[in-house]
Amino acid sequence: MRRMTARPANAHQERVLKLLRDEGPRSRAELSGLIDLSRSKVAVEVDRLMSAGLLVVDGLAASRGGRRSHRIRLSPELRFLGVDIGATSVDVAVTNAELEVLGHLNEPIDVREGPVAVFEQVVVMAGKLKAAGLAESFDGAGVGIPGPVRFAEGVPVAPPIMPGWDGFPVRKALSQVLGCPVMVDNDVNLMALGERHAGVAKRVDDFLCVKIGTGIGCGIVVNGQVHRGASGSAGDIGHIQVDPDGHPCACGNRGCLEAHFSGAALARDALAAVESGHSTGALADRLAASGTLTAADVGAAANVGDAVALDLIRAGGDHVGHVIAGLVSFFNPSLVVLGGRVTGLGHGLLAAIRTQVYRRSLPLATGNLPIVLGDLGPVAGAIGAARLITDHLFSPA
Amino acid sequence: MRRMTARPANAHQERVLKLLRDEGPRSRAELSGLIDLSRSKVAVEVDRLMSAGLLVVDGLAASRGGRRSHRIRLSPELRFLGVDIGATSVDVAVTNAELEVLGHLNEPIDVREGPVAVFEQVVVMAGKLKAAGLAESFDGAGVGIPGPVRFAEGVPVAPPIMPGWDGFPVRKALSQVLGCPVMVDNDVNLMALGERHAGVAKRVDDFLCVKIGTGIGCGIVVNGQVHRGASGSAGDIGHIQVDPDGHPCACGNRGCLEAHFSGAALARDALAAVESGHSTGALADRLAASGTLTAADVGAAANVGDAVALDLIRAGGDHVGHVIAGLVSFFNPSLVVLGGRVTGLGHGLLAAIRTQVYRRSLPLATGNLPIVLGDLGPVAGAIGAARLITDHLFSPA
Repeated sequence: MRRMTARPANAHQERVLKLLRDEGPRSRAELSGLIDLSRSKVAVEVDRLMSAGLLVVDGLAASRGGRRSHRIRLSPELRFLGVDIGATSVDVAVTNAELEVLGHLNEPIDVREGPVAVFEQVVVMAGKLKAAGLAESFDGAGVGIPGPVRFAEGVPVAPPIMPGWDGFPVRKALSQVLGCPVMVDNDVNLMALGERHAGVAKRVDDFLCVKIGTGIGCGIVVNGQVHRGASGSAGDIGHIQVDPDGHPCACGNRGCLEAHFSGAALARDALAAVESGHSTGALADRLAASGTLTAADVGAAANVGDAVALDLIRAGGDHVGHVIAGLVSFFNPSLVVLGGRVTGLGHGLLAAIRTQVYRRSLPLATGNLPIVLGDLGPVAGAIGAARLITDHLFSPA
Repeated sequence: MRRMTARPANAHQERVLKLLRDEGPRSRAELSGLIDLSRSKVAVEVDRLMSAGLLVVDGLAASRGGRRSHRIRLSPELRFLGVDIGATSVDVAVTNAELEVLGHLNEPIDVREGPVAVFEQVVVMAGKLKAAGLAESFDGAGVGIPGPVRFAEGVPVAPPIMPGWDGFPVRKALSQVLGCPVMVDNDVNLMALGERHAGVAKRVDDFLCVKIGTGIGCGIVVNGQVHRGASGSAGDIGHIQVDPDGHPCACGNRGCLEAHFSGAALARDALAAVESGHSTGALADRLAASGTLTAADVGAAANVGDAVALDLIRAGGDHVGHVIAGLVSFFNPSLVVLGGRVTGLGHGLLAAIRTQVYRRSLPLATGNLPIVLGDLGPVAGAIGAARLITDHLFSPA
């Protein structure tokens, strides 16, 4: 396998590469129509990209009446690494240049152990994927982290749940150990990019992607581009106030969304409910069995009809739905995608969120608004990470 | 005077026209540098635009060492009409092609009388501005209305405070009576465009513009473009819930921002305070004198230190600030601009809003965030309207 050593030389080549990445193999004639460039010019640029090792011939296209033409595709030897770091686990995936996942690993981590420990583990995981024969080396890697990122430099900025990460040169450091170009972004932005590339938001240009996990964040896509904001913190909705007299939050304020609904808040409320004797069913059994409760326990208890668990999920959905209702009024998106581990809690959560949004936002903003779960599950962020680095590498230097 | 009969033929001409509109007269050499096009090509496009009557020569540029060159400017004969329709008054302004206001009228209206009555008055006002010698005819007109607009067609959509306007073909109807091209947008979007063209947001690409008047709305600028949303209702923040047990709102929900703070809410609360005997000072005097109270009365009473008036303004600022704090966390803008009649209430309001935002939003999002009053006062919307129509007319057809 070979390393991607060349970048496209001009905007035409960029469009050819991105089109083949997003739409798969095409003939020269199809490319000419799709990027609105003459066939002779397309042929010239395709030849150059083939010489650079970025494109190959991929069999014959379907006949359009005349002689059957060859289809062009991105080199099947290109390999990208998508890394999605969460607060308590990390997903690492290898993709080809069409961003199909060839292999995927998920392992528990504690992001609070700091970047050095986390990246050692990521490199070991990448090594396992290589050892499985999925890649000899990587042409580029995208990395998502659960906090704000100064995007141009690839550096975390004051991430509240990540002591030791503030200002750590993630892009530079990982680029050295992996030996390939690296781009870094917030994990929620990458989930949005992933769902737009291959999931439920395919071809949608303006949408919100709300990730509910250990924390809560929102990816904002405007005109097909991620909106990162003036300091890279756009979408940081976990600290919007939902109750002025509510729970104290780690940020120092009271009643933040995250303090009322997130993986951690749910575990806390479930524990309190059992300890105060409000739950004598499945939740109490799970606490007795394991000595602790997690958001997953609440989900499992809800699945067997535990009333307290169902109530906790509904109350949480009301809080998230209340915030999303405001964002829908403000932003008027075409689509709202829900993702993250906590969305595994099931239909009660989705129903509560939908109820709040459809009741609270103006009819004009919700008339044609789907509110749906993401398609890609745990690999959404890793696919988005691969998309991020290919967006970079498939652009002129 | 002549009518603008030509549109630019290509993207180079578009850039020349918009640059001269935004930056004023320039020499051919300066244009060449600013739009990154060779001098010979600039000269060709400028000649064509002069033949079309869109550009003229405007005296000599400052010497740059050699022979002094002529400056080029937009034809001083071009005239645009900016119309900013509010719930209770309308602003009509005439501008030149650099969007300088040559004359401006403000008259009371009642938007509930419907589009036919309102536009009759607008046409009469435009006639007064013509009679004052400011224009013989108009090359184009921009119109802002206080509700959501289906932008492509220039048609209001289900505007809550404007019975009789839903689906009225504003663009088409006004274009016929004024005899020139017309573009229509939401009034708050036009305030944002105006402040970006000539006001406090000049050269700012990502900002929010919150207008507090009869209602409350927010203009959203992303990458220098107004974000209008999937159905044209983006920025409709007046119905975000600020108190689940709050005042009933005209939209059918409870506790909407507009029901707690807007011109109408302030007048209602002031009247209630006086009638319940809580205000015995300036507010009570004004009620006794006129038999009613308006938001302007609250402002005047606050200016002479009336405690109830000051409290009402502070409480209103808290509510608006609470909503803006959430939007700042979500959108991470570079700037927040406050405008609209109610911002005339003074520094108490601004202080309350700033306090909420700086306290509630994450430090990363507010670290470099100015929250300021708009520069342009009552003509912001009309200038934005002129900007809107020139954006359209200075683009290739």
